[in-house]
Amino acid sequence: MPDSRSGTSSPDGTKGRGVRGAGPAAVTIAYIAESAGVSVPTVSKVLNGRSDVSDETRARVEELIHRYGYRKPPKNRSNLVELVFRELESMWAVEIIRGVERVARRNKVGVLVSEFGLQDTPSRTLDDTLGRRPQCVLSVSQLSEEERGQLKAKGIPFVVFDPNEELPDGVPFVGATNWRGGQAATRHLVGLGHRRIAMISGPDHPFCLARSAGYTSALTEAGLPVDPDLVVKTLLTRDDGCSAARDLLSRPDRPTAVFTANDMQALGVYQAARELGLRIPEDLSVVGFDDVPAVAWVDPPLTTVHQPLAEMAVAATELAPALGRGEDVPQVGVEIATTLTVRESTAPPKT
Amino acid sequence: MPDSRSGTSSPDGTKGRGVRGAGPAAVTIAYIAESAGVSVPTVSKVLNGRSDVSDETRARVEELIHRYGYRKPPKNRSNLVELVFRELESMWAVEIIRGVERVARRNKVGVLVSEFGLQDTPSRTLDDTLGRRPQCVLSVSQLSEEERGQLKAKGIPFVVFDPNEELPDGVPFVGATNWRGGQAATRHLVGLGHRRIAMISGPDHPFCLARSAGYTSALTEAGLPVDPDLVVKTLLTRDDGCSAARDLLSRPDRPTAVFTANDMQALGVYQAARELGLRIPEDLSVVGFDDVPAVAWVDPPLTTVHQPLAEMAVAATELAPALGRGEDVPQVGVEIATTLTVRESTAPPKT
Repeated sequence: MPDSRSGTSSPDGTKGRGVRGAGPAAVTIAYIAESAGVSVPTVSKVLNGRSDVSDETRARVEELIHRYGYRKPPKNRSNLVELVFRELESMWAVEIIRGVERVARRNKVGVLVSEFGLQDTPSRTLDDTLGRRPQCVLSVSQLSEEERGQLKAKGIPFVVFDPNEELPDGVPFVGATNWRGGQAATRHLVGLGHRRIAMISGPDHPFCLARSAGYTSALTEAGLPVDPDLVVKTLLTRDDGCSAARDLLSRPDRPTAVFTANDMQALGVYQAARELGLRIPEDLSVVGFDDVPAVAWVDPPLTTVHQPLAEMAVAATELAPALGRGEDVPQVGVEIATTLTVRESTAPPKT
Repeated sequence: MPDSRSGTSSPDGTKGRGVRGAGPAAVTIAYIAESAGVSVPTVSKVLNGRSDVSDETRARVEELIHRYGYRKPPKNRSNLVELVFRELESMWAVEIIRGVERVARRNKVGVLVSEFGLQDTPSRTLDDTLGRRPQCVLSVSQLSEEERGQLKAKGIPFVVFDPNEELPDGVPFVGATNWRGGQAATRHLVGLGHRRIAMISGPDHPFCLARSAGYTSALTEAGLPVDPDLVVKTLLTRDDGCSAARDLLSRPDRPTAVFTANDMQALGVYQAARELGLRIPEDLSVVGFDDVPAVAWVDPPLTTVHQPLAEMAVAATELAPALGRGEDVPQVGVEIATTLTVRESTAPPKT
């Protein structure tokens, strides 16, 4: 179809939908076409990823789509939400899937689950997702700027679930109150009488930094010094938690309690304590973070900060389609409250 | 549209596809219409679940569809597989989802995950699934005769994944070699020198019965008596495993080893052993079944029979669409081999 001028006198009536649900102008496909000096069908071709458009025209149209925050109206989309994982990991993932599925089922919406394998280039895999035209995308942990741009251009609303990287303002996300969780875990240990409380921390993801900051805040509010020697930064695995704990617990002035950035690290502390002949909680108190099901079955059952995965899934599943409908949602980013689950791995220190 | 006779002179060329992929006749929609004395569009309406067909006509057409094993050709179906769970349970479910997703992604097929909540009537929920027209359905653990009939009538191929009930011959399934797994677990204990080996068994599901039969076979081949007092049947939970073990281990002539029908029961045995002051494996050897990730993290790490969930998922994901394409698959039911994972919960008995 040849390019031809298309006046703004016949807008398609679609309202522009900014990410915040508060776009001031009614940006239509006709307006984009007019601004780019191309026809409405040409803009459609760009939106639909068709190849029969010149690179120059495509670039001009995409720039305008991005500048005006244009989104396709949702009427063409399937009755599906797509839940995207970078890695489908045990226990963690299934709690999220279950939460999303339950909300979606009530709304007669199907749940697609996909994994961006580490061997894939993300943009290539997102092509499959875009082709399925889901009603919305919930991306667990990450969604790059490029990916967000692709989804925006296709008019597919998205929410980042439990982001593990900084997001610009206005990118919708659902997370947990990690800072409060770290604070609650440390307050619990302080309240039991511990004074030498170590922290096994994680990589510089926002959620790890927030958990560590909660630890620091709780120590400070209790008038306790924050000893940098008692903070070890390592990966979020059982093996790394074990190595870090071996180091901490072999010192002559070893800590009487350890707070870890996640449950897997805490299970590593259990392993190190066994190796060193230290009993939990008699010789060492341990608090984890996440409350994955397995930590209730270990000996002793782990005291940990409960991540409200089910509630987070509900919030994310309700937020994304609301954004898609252009509703004026009260907020695009939300943190759901963690709670401390006290089991048997914490006790007062030996006097 | 009024009913009108439709001759068999214009068959639609679609081959009939029996569940075995070996239907002798080319059953077409025209043939069904002719046999029922209705028009082709009327048969289509029945196949598509439309309401503007009389009950009597619908019953006659459905009976013929069932009798001739007619299936709709796959061309109308979406590029999706649907993975149906009765209950989305931790650890177990995610391994299955991951396996299915990986095969599906290679084939550019999306994976829908749905849960038949216990509060739903199955047929009602399957309506949603039918409406999504998946390429195939993989149903975890169960698929009732009624549900199989609904899927057949819609021409949607299906596979029962790890069935927990008896299925008639010809119903496609993918399971694990449960009998061989039970045998391998018990042989391992016999090989270590154990003579009083208890079994904590499960409900009368075929997979539980097979695991128990493997235990019995291994004892018999070793010339050991099968003592009914050493076999306790209970639910597949940690609590029930713990209760059963408390009973077994409190006896004066307590067993020196326990084989359990699943890993959760084995974790219950750990709990009972702790309560009774018995050390694993010094005082008691324990072997589980499933190899869920958590059992590698407990103390001591559990020796267990590994269920090849990833391989089972691959087989199921490849079997269902092949059936849908009417391919002459070599078998419609398959059991994938289990393997014994020896960790630290088993040792020779104390002499």
